[in-house]
Amino acid sequence: MDKSEQLALSGEHFTAVYHLCGTHEQAAKRARDICVEQTVEFPDELIEREDIKEQIIGRVARLESIDDGIYRADIEFPLEVAGEELPQLLNVLFGNISLKPDLRLVDIELPRSLSRIFRGPRFGRDGLRQIVNVANRPLLATALKPMGLSPKELAHLAFQFALSGIDVIKDDHGLADQKFSPFNERVERCSEAVSRANQQTGQHCIYMPNITASSEQVIPRARKAKACGAGGVLICPGLTGLDTMRAIADDDSIALPILCHPALYGAFSTHRNSGISHGVLYGQINRLAGADATIFPNYGGRFSFTTDECRNLVDGTIRPMGDIKPIFPVPAGGMSLNRISELVAFYGRDVILLIGGDLHRHGPDLAANCRKLLALVRA
Amino acid sequence: MDKSEQLALSGEHFTAVYHLCGTHEQAAKRARDICVEQTVEFPDELIEREDIKEQIIGRVARLESIDDGIYRADIEFPLEVAGEELPQLLNVLFGNISLKPDLRLVDIELPRSLSRIFRGPRFGRDGLRQIVNVANRPLLATALKPMGLSPKELAHLAFQFALSGIDVIKDDHGLADQKFSPFNERVERCSEAVSRANQQTGQHCIYMPNITASSEQVIPRARKAKACGAGGVLICPGLTGLDTMRAIADDDSIALPILCHPALYGAFSTHRNSGISHGVLYGQINRLAGADATIFPNYGGRFSFTTDECRNLVDGTIRPMGDIKPIFPVPAGGMSLNRISELVAFYGRDVILLIGGDLHRHGPDLAANCRKLLALVRA
Repeated sequence: MDKSEQLALSGEHFTAVYHLCGTHEQAAKRARDICVEQTVEFPDELIEREDIKEQIIGRVARLESIDDGIYRADIEFPLEVAGEELPQLLNVLFGNISLKPDLRLVDIELPRSLSRIFRGPRFGRDGLRQIVNVANRPLLATALKPMGLSPKELAHLAFQFALSGIDVIKDDHGLADQKFSPFNERVERCSEAVSRANQQTGQHCIYMPNITASSEQVIPRARKAKACGAGGVLICPGLTGLDTMRAIADDDSIALPILCHPALYGAFSTHRNSGISHGVLYGQINRLAGADATIFPNYGGRFSFTTDECRNLVDGTIRPMGDIKPIFPVPAGGMSLNRISELVAFYGRDVILLIGGDLHRHGPDLAANCRKLLALVRA
Repeated sequence: MDKSEQLALSGEHFTAVYHLCGTHEQAAKRARDICVEQTVEFPDELIEREDIKEQIIGRVARLESIDDGIYRADIEFPLEVAGEELPQLLNVLFGNISLKPDLRLVDIELPRSLSRIFRGPRFGRDGLRQIVNVANRPLLATALKPMGLSPKELAHLAFQFALSGIDVIKDDHGLADQKFSPFNERVERCSEAVSRANQQTGQHCIYMPNITASSEQVIPRARKAKACGAGGVLICPGLTGLDTMRAIADDDSIALPILCHPALYGAFSTHRNSGISHGVLYGQINRLAGADATIFPNYGGRFSFTTDECRNLVDGTIRPMGDIKPIFPVPAGGMSLNRISELVAFYGRDVILLIGGDLHRHGPDLAANCRKLLALVRA
């Protein structure tokens, strides 16, 4: 080997924390396996260069029992292995080992240098509060649905919601660019309806159209939303790729708050001892990728998240991560008006409550139902 | 409602098949739930428009017991609900219900009209065989690794592999654009090395650099690969988003075969009764998204796929899907020379055998090891 090829990495690292199932011996073996699998992916003993062994392969910084048959392993990876790109960071954190059962990514710790490369949310909690001009209470959100309504009907719904105290109106995440609801017409009509309502109320309700689309169309749709005066965008990074959301967040010509929907995410989080923890996936990773608010299925709704999982998730939205801002948790999925006081007690004021179908359940006067919701939240 | 808003969908549908756990009654309820959750996502009884109930909501076409406590549900979704975009098709197939445990997507049937919108692989099995000029035997592939080697050293490896009978040389999927292995320099040097070897041998080995990158960089890297004369590209759609791979496949200015790596995919497939089946995920979905060959961890290697899962996966690479071509299965992950005859017996001739570390294990003469592999495959 040419001497000039010798590695001279900085020695800086980021840390991934995993839960591993098994005996201590098995856990130690698996921890070491992760160090190799996620970097050189090559038999240790066949690596000729000592500098690669020393500088590229991950390092088990800590291994301890946390529960019967479950160990916590803190693994340090060299900063340079992640390059300066989010997909490669994800690859190191969970790429190949996603294919191995009984291990779960439960925490990420990034050095400040990485949290500068990944700028995270443009607005975060404080920025989004300023935009909707609500300082102290939980924000209220709802969705335009059901799929099948025309843009004109959706705009009519949006107008009523905006007139009646809702802060954030999002497209249902199934509204894409279908013939019965073309994206352009929908975003034009709904943005206009919400602006018109804001002029009447003096409030700052925002409409967030769903820009989840083919890879060629995501940026144009975000620009269209901006041009129409939409106050933000909704995106499903599980469908578009996480880095597409990051690109929207980083684009100064768009500069709109991002609400992130968990479509396809469930496969990562529904099994307790594998996948990625709620705090890391819905919290830390979505923050890294630029979401300002993260939708998830609330405990006790029509999905299966537990209160502990929701707490872990909220922790991931606010846990210190260098310069990366905290974001809003957005519990959703079978939320109902009669649970508002319980939900506010659980989540506190820093939450966006996303109530869909149930707003329609309390009689035909949507505006009255929204005002009832607002009164409940203020109480 | 304005009469002109009345839906008039085509009546064409696509079908998703799920395995559901539980009693017959539970399975029937869950099947119905999927129909609603994946379309209107709104309480049935609150939908005022009969045309939406009739035309937008999915329909259970069949429900039958297939095993103790497991039911098969065939659900038909209206074609127009998927729009004409892959992310929305994925959303309907598995978006929200990924968040619900104990159900698994096990088959997709698309009408010919959809398989025309999604053109799938540009080359497929036959096209790739023509490119590497190998008509009848399994193709041989290896990876440039370990991470940490310089572009010059990787090119030296590539040259040896190409000179010795390997058909497909791919970057290790962890090689991105790190300081120690910048993408541009790597693709220039390795493409040149493989061309030079091909001139000596008269063969048609291809080099597939890893273009997995930030969303702004994937297309430029694919173009750079093309400009350097690389014979194909490697991409991890779990990291970039599936539709990014589809965009590369559809881009006439790139027109290179695509090898698809399963980083992050494991979360979808490792639990038997949830997620997405091997045949659908690694086979059908990757085909829809334009892969020409699909890498997966072989049974009996250092991952945990079973022989049944590998068989199901291979079925997904070739199962009839309208105009969408069959693609190559690429078993990998702890493959060894001494299993070649077993693997050829299992997979037949239509396979790409991806052997990484083990090629380095049989003595220091890489070229001799490659020739040994080729002889084993020809035998």
